[in-house]
Amino acid sequence: MRIDRAALADLATGAAFLGSGGGGDPYYAMLLGEAELARRGSFELVTLDTLADDALVVPCGWVGAPTVSVEKLPSGKEAMAGLQRLEAMLGRKIDAVMPIEIGGSNGLAPLVAAAELGVPVVDADGMGRAFPESQMAIFNIHGISACPSVVTAASGSLTVIETSDNVEHERLARALAIALGGIAHMVEYPLSGAQAKAYAVPGSISVAIAIGAAIRQARAAGEDPFEALFTALWESGLYAHAGILFDGKITDLERETQGGFSVGRIVIEAFDGQSRVEVDFQNENLLARRDGKIVAMVPDILTVMDRETADSITTERLKYGQRVKLVGAAAPAMLRTARALDFVGPGAFGYPDAYVPIERLNGWGA
Amino acid sequence: MRIDRAALADLATGAAFLGSGGGGDPYYAMLLGEAELARRGSFELVTLDTLADDALVVPCGWVGAPTVSVEKLPSGKEAMAGLQRLEAMLGRKIDAVMPIEIGGSNGLAPLVAAAELGVPVVDADGMGRAFPESQMAIFNIHGISACPSVVTAASGSLTVIETSDNVEHERLARALAIALGGIAHMVEYPLSGAQAKAYAVPGSISVAIAIGAAIRQARAAGEDPFEALFTALWESGLYAHAGILFDGKITDLERETQGGFSVGRIVIEAFDGQSRVEVDFQNENLLARRDGKIVAMVPDILTVMDRETADSITTERLKYGQRVKLVGAAAPAMLRTARALDFVGPGAFGYPDAYVPIERLNGWGA
Repeated sequence: MRIDRAALADLATGAAFLGSGGGGDPYYAMLLGEAELARRGSFELVTLDTLADDALVVPCGWVGAPTVSVEKLPSGKEAMAGLQRLEAMLGRKIDAVMPIEIGGSNGLAPLVAAAELGVPVVDADGMGRAFPESQMAIFNIHGISACPSVVTAASGSLTVIETSDNVEHERLARALAIALGGIAHMVEYPLSGAQAKAYAVPGSISVAIAIGAAIRQARAAGEDPFEALFTALWESGLYAHAGILFDGKITDLERETQGGFSVGRIVIEAFDGQSRVEVDFQNENLLARRDGKIVAMVPDILTVMDRETADSITTERLKYGQRVKLVGAAAPAMLRTARALDFVGPGAFGYPDAYVPIERLNGWGA
Repeated sequence: MRIDRAALADLATGAAFLGSGGGGDPYYAMLLGEAELARRGSFELVTLDTLADDALVVPCGWVGAPTVSVEKLPSGKEAMAGLQRLEAMLGRKIDAVMPIEIGGSNGLAPLVAAAELGVPVVDADGMGRAFPESQMAIFNIHGISACPSVVTAASGSLTVIETSDNVEHERLARALAIALGGIAHMVEYPLSGAQAKAYAVPGSISVAIAIGAAIRQARAAGEDPFEALFTALWESGLYAHAGILFDGKITDLERETQGGFSVGRIVIEAFDGQSRVEVDFQNENLLARRDGKIVAMVPDILTVMDRETADSITTERLKYGQRVKLVGAAAPAMLRTARALDFVGPGAFGYPDAYVPIERLNGWGA
């Protein structure tokens, strides 16, 4: 399977939606990918089942506040430096690279790194969306160590982290990202092929491409891109429910960079002024309350989209006055188990409320 | 040369003074050293001139806020873990260990690490006192890289830092120390024997022992321990001037943990209430103003001591109401060159004032 320029653009569209507002705007990652494609023609994508059980599969992506990524550009050498150091430490070649999260720019970034390293990207990821913290990866939920992990920065600095505590790993990586200017590249959770097959979210890159293609085709045909999105999500087999939670205008926005995250809240008001929704975010949109009642909770996906074009608006791009639709989608089932919810449910973000699936909150489908 | 239990206690006394209020109270390091001595009898100390030019000499010590070290005890494995990782990375054995700074607990901590590793400690250090930031080491002043550097913590976590920018190295190490609970062990500025001989502050461990012995003997003989201290400093050849800057009671104390440092200010008032001195500190005491006029500036040494016992009071041990003498001493000449002052003079700490040597400010000696 190959990713060409058209598929890359679709991937950017799909990853932006799956990011649930986070993972960074994929636009720059797409430009970097296009530049790489001008040299290479296409990126190689392989399915999980092609991996040998003893293959070395390495997730990677950027850590930090997406607000920073808008202003602080990468050197382009970060990913390779980290991957090559991991190879040197483990004394073996990497067989494939994987996005740590499909959401946002991190869904695209590993393509260039893999191409430079001369290995394929695995059609899978570690979150099925984007999450703000590294230990929210499904690999941590299954007890796999994040280490050895390598953090690299545009300055050329490189840091190796080794700890048996994946929460400490996240804390150290976050501290480094802040000290490195707010954003850094991280190689983490090195996996065997068997572990990748057992735990990664399967097919999420091709799902993101399909989502992007559906939106693009609907726009071209003058059809409703939101309906096309929902159909693509449903057909993916990963995201079983989706729908529009609210339609209106952003009338309030609080956003600050805090502890290495972009943290804040938006208010969207209905055009008739009779109703409003509030959305909290920590890099990613976490929870939405419509007129005081919760309508979506993490780990379900919650994305603010332009109400005309269905462009996903990542949290660092939110602006007062934007006319938007708030779209929700059910998270993959593997993120909704009781064990997974301990790591990625509302409680993991400090909410006192027990998780209720988005389809129940909204009376969707069966 | 061997350091036995008596010499260890003298070293603790001398290092506490040379710490200029920082480097951490040496008391715990002394207890750890005594426990090690109960097994080994003595620590081996070698002079710089015994090092082969191609020897691998490794400075190390603790980084963080000394206020934290009072409450957060080490696991005891931090130093060995860091030194052994450096050996593995460089593919060779370490020939000798050195305190990165002679001041405070960091003047003693490497003794145990070296003994466990089976190598001697070099009678020298990288600061001739204690400084709050890693890039203030004399090795940075001479353009030597701090990296590869290894940060280890009581939790068992280990981080390798590689950057060509020694200020970025300090920033990353500080961020890690904060994320690790406020304090961590660091191996840094790996040196060749030739570099150690060219740049390290020579003989500072035996000078600290001599200072401690002088104070101890004066106390035992009922003589003035301050006079004994000044004589020992003068005889060391490193610290050419010393004297009492003020005598009084601490009547105000501000101290907070900020950015991984213990930062604050004390006011000492004369017993007749007619005069006062203010001392600023960032881990170490930096600058003193007596009745508004500067009487001591970094890099000169500035230590608050119990006015009866001549015990040095590190900044995390300062308390309201303590009856103290403020003692100043000239920094080693190698810290007073124009180039060195760019790194460790008042300007490096944000003071607008040009450096004036303590002996000129106070009309001491020739």
